[in-house]
Amino acid sequence: MGQTLTEKILEDHLVEGELETGEEIGIEIDQVLTQDTTGTMVWLQFEAMGLDEVQTEIAAQYCDHQTYQFDFKNTDDHRFLRSAAGTYGAHFSRPGNGICHNVHRENFAAPGKTLLGSDSHTPTPGGLGELAIGAGGIDVTVAMGGAPYYIEMPEIVNVRLEGELPEWATAKDVILEMLRRLSVKGGVGKILEYTGPGVETLTAPERMTITNMGTELGATTSIFPTDEQTEDYLERVGRGDEYVEIQPDEDAEYDDEIVVDLSDLEPLIAQPSMPDNVVPVSEVAGEDVEQVIVGSLSLIHISEWAGMLAREGWVAEMMAAGVNFSEATCGACIGIGHVPASDSVSLRTFNRNFEGRSGIEDDNVYLCSPEVAAAAAIKGEIIDPRDLEEEEEDLEAPGVELPEEYDGSKTDLIAPDEAVDDELIKGPNIGDVPIRDQLSADVEGEALLKMEDNITTDHIIPATQDILMYRSNVPKLSEFTLSRVDDTFAERALDADGGFLVAGENYGQGSSREHAALCPMYLGIEAVLAQSFARIHRANLFNFGIVPLTIDEDTYESIDQGDEIEIVDDVYEAVTSGQEEFTVRVGDDEFTATLDASERERDILAAGGKLAWTREQAEGASGATPADD
Amino acid sequence: MGQTLTEKILEDHLVEGELETGEEIGIEIDQVLTQDTTGTMVWLQFEAMGLDEVQTEIAAQYCDHQTYQFDFKNTDDHRFLRSAAGTYGAHFSRPGNGICHNVHRENFAAPGKTLLGSDSHTPTPGGLGELAIGAGGIDVTVAMGGAPYYIEMPEIVNVRLEGELPEWATAKDVILEMLRRLSVKGGVGKILEYTGPGVETLTAPERMTITNMGTELGATTSIFPTDEQTEDYLERVGRGDEYVEIQPDEDAEYDDEIVVDLSDLEPLIAQPSMPDNVVPVSEVAGEDVEQVIVGSLSLIHISEWAGMLAREGWVAEMMAAGVNFSEATCGACIGIGHVPASDSVSLRTFNRNFEGRSGIEDDNVYLCSPEVAAAAAIKGEIIDPRDLEEEEEDLEAPGVELPEEYDGSKTDLIAPDEAVDDELIKGPNIGDVPIRDQLSADVEGEALLKMEDNITTDHIIPATQDILMYRSNVPKLSEFTLSRVDDTFAERALDADGGFLVAGENYGQGSSREHAALCPMYLGIEAVLAQSFARIHRANLFNFGIVPLTIDEDTYESIDQGDEIEIVDDVYEAVTSGQEEFTVRVGDDEFTATLDASERERDILAAGGKLAWTREQAEGASGATPADD
Repeated sequence: MGQTLTEKILEDHLVEGELETGEEIGIEIDQVLTQDTTGTMVWLQFEAMGLDEVQTEIAAQYCDHQTYQFDFKNTDDHRFLRSAAGTYGAHFSRPGNGICHNVHRENFAAPGKTLLGSDSHTPTPGGLGELAIGAGGIDVTVAMGGAPYYIEMPEIVNVRLEGELPEWATAKDVILEMLRRLSVKGGVGKILEYTGPGVETLTAPERMTITNMGTELGATTSIFPTDEQTEDYLERVGRGDEYVEIQPDEDAEYDDEIVVDLSDLEPLIAQPSMPDNVVPVSEVAGEDVEQVIVGSLSLIHISEWAGMLAREGWVAEMMAAGVNFSEATCGACIGIGHVPASDSVSLRTFNRNFEGRSGIEDDNVYLCSPEVAAAAAIKGEIIDPRDLEEEEEDLEAPGVELPEEYDGSKTDLIAPDEAVDDELIKGPNIGDVPIRDQLSADVEGEALLKMEDNITTDHIIPATQDILMYRSNVPKLSEFTLSRVDDTFAERALDADGGFLVAGENYGQGSSREHAALCPMYLGIEAVLAQSFARIHRANLFNFGIVPLTIDEDTYESIDQGDEIEIVDDVYEAVTSGQEEFTVRVGDDEFTATLDASERERDILAAGGKLAWTREQAEGASGATPADD
Repeated sequence: MGQTLTEKILEDHLVEGELETGEEIGIEIDQVLTQDTTGTMVWLQFEAMGLDEVQTEIAAQYCDHQTYQFDFKNTDDHRFLRSAAGTYGAHFSRPGNGICHNVHRENFAAPGKTLLGSDSHTPTPGGLGELAIGAGGIDVTVAMGGAPYYIEMPEIVNVRLEGELPEWATAKDVILEMLRRLSVKGGVGKILEYTGPGVETLTAPERMTITNMGTELGATTSIFPTDEQTEDYLERVGRGDEYVEIQPDEDAEYDDEIVVDLSDLEPLIAQPSMPDNVVPVSEVAGEDVEQVIVGSLSLIHISEWAGMLAREGWVAEMMAAGVNFSEATCGACIGIGHVPASDSVSLRTFNRNFEGRSGIEDDNVYLCSPEVAAAAAIKGEIIDPRDLEEEEEDLEAPGVELPEEYDGSKTDLIAPDEAVDDELIKGPNIGDVPIRDQLSADVEGEALLKMEDNITTDHIIPATQDILMYRSNVPKLSEFTLSRVDDTFAERALDADGGFLVAGENYGQGSSREHAALCPMYLGIEAVLAQSFARIHRANLFNFGIVPLTIDEDTYESIDQGDEIEIVDDVYEAVTSGQEEFTVRVGDDEFTATLDASERERDILAAGGKLAWTREQAEGASGATPADD
């Protein structure tokens, strides 16, 4: 039986387990990346683990989320990150140098390599044939220390592209079409492997627009085979020698297949407030638009434009036309800057439009291609660019030509051997990493909060500036936990000294932000009962010693906020012995909840989280008895 | 007797009074400008006064302080300002289009005209021979409605420039030298008129670097005569036809004279944390620098550079060299973005370095020319660029050539006849304008706060983002009043229901921010006892119905915070009757305090402030009796 492209790369990196769907495998990680909202915790954990030096081929620390530095805490974080990169041997990319995924793909991403990053859009270089996965910061820390990355072997889905994009349809519309068909949960537990004759019609940057936003499907990652387009791109970024041809075997077997005919696509748009709320642009034409933002990380092919614009002197012309050039940042997507006006429509080429993420509650954010965004900017309302073409004589569909040579972004990376600092510099807001005690035998407490389906990490820990500046200060940051759902929660949780969260489907979707597990841990949350968990967040719960238990809909319906819940089993014993079904008592009723976890995950949970577990392993400790509280 | 340049322009615009030093004069205003931190209140007051349409030749509303739009309140403010400009007939400059002073000088500033602006750096176009004065927002509102602007006729000082700047010395060093000699109080009550053979050696943008930062001397304004350099500049901005030659008479008499030999100047730097703390750069060489920022409004000649850079494709190269391009904003100067790291040195080409203004307490901000800043960026520490030139073979002093044509910024202005909106759009944070009752007969209360010399408007109402976003919401903003001096003040003041502020010399220096009077008024402050007042703030106190009384040093020393103070006189009666000396009882002691005010100022004060007074006048009300509380 032939192999898929994914299987080839995984086999090449396999350290533990077998490539069978649902089995836990351990893989070697070649490259890691982290950014400024997740990176401080990564390095504080790296320090806490007592590791001396980065062990991966490439480790890169980018500063791209809070490049505006609204507060000295942000600036201190950037300085700390520079010092950590220098101290431990990572590349450092200064604030302003660009968004991590763009800088990484230009400088480091390579076909056949594995990349683990503490950012949910890490899959971006999948468009270059790299197997790139987003993870919680602590997983990145551990991988950076040379340990394998463990993951349940996903299903591999063949996304077969046929035909060629017509005028005004773009790579963005390919991924919007995927979202329209599959929904934000449709990719969970899956790797999407793009194949078929349509692949060669897409440039590498266009492919990366698709792999980047594959994250919104919930997919583990997305990947393209390599070919002349890949080689062409690598040559333009000065790394032609890193090209490797890597393709699935002709007789590769996939778990599922989806066919997308590119020729059928038209300009699409995701309506407020979920990336899968997709319709043709023409369906919402006429809606007044107050703000249009082109850029941020999902707009891969704009980065080529921007480079060309800057090099060819067009920046002044665009400024003159009324464009406000922002710093190179992920900021506005998460409400850091350019927050929409109240009761207004914002059109963005970003990849997420979760409600309130833009920095204002009840926002109206649409996601679309830069072509659709530009048409709206010209017209003042949403319009299908094909209709605008009919109205405006001079307008024609833009073709994007890649720059001959990408000169520039490499020179602003500080390589490990050029490090500015050789010791950690911590400002006053940079605190310690809290570590949880071993898992208890007795887990009981109140259902402190009952939530709906699709709670995002933005709900759990909002990424707006006023909150995110405390990312390196867990006690302070924890005060904002789930405040967007219930602003009394954090105080109630601290007072309760232990308790449960209850949620519906797809709990913890969105960014890779491990603070969404770290802060509930700090507040004393011992277990989350949910109908299902988003992949990265589920891993984060294990990593921070919170028990993720799956419940069915009946159980979900039976629990009310405020109920007293008790796990009847000796939880420490049950977790370490491999028990899958747990009895949950709610008042007089008993229900079954499931712990679906590998042996390794159980060990981590029992130890009180990954940091405690890693320390335990380093100290050779074993057979510890459960804490009794 | 011949006339000074200033007298010629004033005479041309004189509506009331005589041009005698110390006498109040009323002058006609040709142009007004306002920006986004002061503009919302200007337009709310314009609305409250019931005025229909702007009456000046030019009115321009710029958005340049909070272009990052960290919060929807900022975005809502910008939308409100656009709607107000459209409704009442002003030009509107979008956020991102540039700093008000730069955009104004390129598009509107003209020799011989008068300009009133609600920004303390309004004097910038003095470098083009425009008489440009900064004022509180309400003065701008009233001028915009067609009324004269009243001011005490300042002394006119001849600043005679001789010689020519040597290599590496810049226009910035001219004004730093002035600050070194005169201090931040040295220009109070004065207009600085630049003359002499050195003038023609400076381009118009260089002159505007000097006039801009004349504000830091406390000067009413600074002005240059016009000549070929002025004409050349106006031609480059496409307004050559607006050139007028305007020079002082040869036998003009000045109140004072200062001679600056440009040939003697060397690179200077203002040390933390006052713009007059100036030394030669060589004296502080070797100091490690963590942050260098080139730009903001004071760096007039960098705007020529930036335009050239953008047009000639150098932006990409500079990005590659590690430069983070910020949006076109005044932001970082007032702590909106790029807040320095804790315990670090920041070198900036800005015009103010008041302690804490950068957004972090105990900051270390130095002010210098772009050449000195660039040298520090290259070296990583402060260095005299002449020493760097010796170290680095390829380095030579840059000469700045002005662009042939300034194309661009005009196209992003929305002219009144192209207005987007024709009615006001108010977001939920945009509140009403509070109006004070008539002045009382009895003024007594506690000395709620006793302050030192040189309290700035940044102390009174900090301009950092978390606070300034409430600029259109007076009750909320007032909670932060003087919080940097004493964070219990606002609550104590509200509880006290009336009371006094006590301060040393130069109270209220800094920006034109009228919130620094409006918020104390809202909190119930009835009078300020200070050894001296900064000009714009003093006017703002009248405008918001707070009695500004001057006390001598003995009186200052005799008052302790918490003392009960009573003005023995019938205050309403005394103010309206022209009484200058007031008896102030503090415990068992009595002191004399002075009210130095014109008849007009007394009328305004008695009415409860300018808004109440203007309404009163409009309603034809007169002879109202004092309120009795």
